[in-house]
Amino acid sequence: MEANKRLIRKNVSEMAGYVPGEQPVDPGILKLNTNENPYPPSPRVGEAFERCNVADLRRYPDPQCRELRETIARVHGVEPAMVFVGNGSDEVLALIIRAFVENDGSVGFFDPSYSLYPVLAQAAGVAQRPVALGDDFEWSMPDGYEASVFFLTCPNAPTGMAYAPETVADFCRTFNGLVVVDEAYADFAEGNALSLARELGNVLVCRTLSKSYSLAGLRVGYAIGSPVLIDALGRIKDSYNIGCLAQKLAVAALNDQAYMLRHTGFIRETRERVARELYMMGFVVTPSQANFLWVRHERVAAKELFSRLRERKVLARYFPGERTDRHLRITIGTDADMDRFLFEMRNALNQQ
Amino acid sequence: MEANKRLIRKNVSEMAGYVPGEQPVDPGILKLNTNENPYPPSPRVGEAFERCNVADLRRYPDPQCRELRETIARVHGVEPAMVFVGNGSDEVLALIIRAFVENDGSVGFFDPSYSLYPVLAQAAGVAQRPVALGDDFEWSMPDGYEASVFFLTCPNAPTGMAYAPETVADFCRTFNGLVVVDEAYADFAEGNALSLARELGNVLVCRTLSKSYSLAGLRVGYAIGSPVLIDALGRIKDSYNIGCLAQKLAVAALNDQAYMLRHTGFIRETRERVARELYMMGFVVTPSQANFLWVRHERVAAKELFSRLRERKVLARYFPGERTDRHLRITIGTDADMDRFLFEMRNALNQQ
Repeated sequence: MEANKRLIRKNVSEMAGYVPGEQPVDPGILKLNTNENPYPPSPRVGEAFERCNVADLRRYPDPQCRELRETIARVHGVEPAMVFVGNGSDEVLALIIRAFVENDGSVGFFDPSYSLYPVLAQAAGVAQRPVALGDDFEWSMPDGYEASVFFLTCPNAPTGMAYAPETVADFCRTFNGLVVVDEAYADFAEGNALSLARELGNVLVCRTLSKSYSLAGLRVGYAIGSPVLIDALGRIKDSYNIGCLAQKLAVAALNDQAYMLRHTGFIRETRERVARELYMMGFVVTPSQANFLWVRHERVAAKELFSRLRERKVLARYFPGERTDRHLRITIGTDADMDRFLFEMRNALNQQ
Repeated sequence: MEANKRLIRKNVSEMAGYVPGEQPVDPGILKLNTNENPYPPSPRVGEAFERCNVADLRRYPDPQCRELRETIARVHGVEPAMVFVGNGSDEVLALIIRAFVENDGSVGFFDPSYSLYPVLAQAAGVAQRPVALGDDFEWSMPDGYEASVFFLTCPNAPTGMAYAPETVADFCRTFNGLVVVDEAYADFAEGNALSLARELGNVLVCRTLSKSYSLAGLRVGYAIGSPVLIDALGRIKDSYNIGCLAQKLAVAALNDQAYMLRHTGFIRETRERVARELYMMGFVVTPSQANFLWVRHERVAAKELFSRLRERKVLARYFPGERTDRHLRITIGTDADMDRFLFEMRNALNQQ
């Protein structure tokens, strides 16, 4: 029997879900579409994996994630009570709306930015207050702007642009609501807002192990902020939201900061080289502090370039929509990946 | 700076979070408090673990969980479109409220039952409509009862009682809202409601790999029901809610039905033996179809017995509260575990 659609919440019936980037099955495809890290995780993760005992999976994980939170706290020089861990930073972002936005409240974010925010607002049935970025994706806030929660994505996605620390700090100090500085890409950037999360009572900084720690498949993200905010998230989370294996492997990855710094360094160097090469091919390259580039060609339309690359087994990311459809987002891979990418891009541009 | 509490949603400020059972650090404690399975997961899970490549964790998991959903569908004889997978069945239950209960809607459940339901209702800020069970925890519905979603826990927790299939079917056929048959313990029971999830458009059946598959640490649960209901859950879930390792190990566990059936059989046999022995010690033993017993001693108060057992390094579960504080819930372990338990229980009863 067909289910009666009246059983479904109205806001859920009306929404389309988030569209994640394609995960192609063909291993021959060069996958530069979901900002995955081209390097494997730290060897310490492999060692921790070898030490795991599958028999222990019969037990529930630590609902408090004590060791993991202590590790994160040590890395960032904060107390464990200032750390919340989620099943990927996506869960952290979803919980933030449910902890800090009343039914008649609102969620703010840049346009364009991470396309999950409006989906999360729709899923929660709360109002959206997007802030249009300028022609070159620069940030300026409309006068009298208000929202219950503002997602300040820095570096922003899909543009890769970071905003000046003073501008971010000024905004956080004067904004009336909660500021969530989404720093998924901060390990590829010059600065970050952690000091604001330590100092201000209305700032949460979100991080993920998916990008800089090469652990997108593990699902671990976290938020740093005042214990009062962290406690609110803890009340509404699923008790056992992080499995045993994820807790152990995340600890191992975080304990190898040297590996993370070295490999994010490689990606930053590769990014700058690829940016120069694309510029020389006639691309407008947005200054990036992330592990991807946001580029627009002066002659060939982004959608057409996306298709030509796809035929050549290179998968970039193309976002339909007025603010984004002139650009492609290119994840930075290894140097060898990007040599192949640049070769195929030259061919794609020259294709008649 | 202390965070301003005005930033927190009112319903979240006012709630206390769910209290999970204690996870003691002392390995000498016999842990019979969280309904974990005493047997390790299937050897196939270990084999799948050995085949996992840590380097692959740099990639995002399949957001659709295709292989896992196909496996679950095959086990239950349904289409993959009838299967939703969550980060433990706790996530499935939380998403159900967010997909099917409007802000002015309500959530129903037995009293007593799984103590997470009222917490989920509070977290979502929706009304609660508990249905008091009878003196012997039998089920009868008040006239004119209504709720947006009713959590029909069968076998119920913490009592272990299963309700007659005809009663469950009649209720589902006449109830105006969505019925969620929470079957976390169904693999230890005689019957289940899967045929109702296949036939009726207002029924979801929830299952978990935590108990019968010995994978509490992995965090995999699922719901079976009409594709329309499953689709609604898919729209609001985090895209990558199940990590790569969890997807692979869950598939391996589900593909070894023989192992699951054999070990749930052991637990059922042990349960009946322990029930008889406790009865002979003067306990009132509620008829259980789960992997635990709900017992009350005629002479010694439950809270006192809990403490005496705790001193003897046996951890049972005691739930404060008017409807539950005369009972202890005892998870069924191996035969050796339960011999030790019975020995300590005899001593605890005889203690002056």
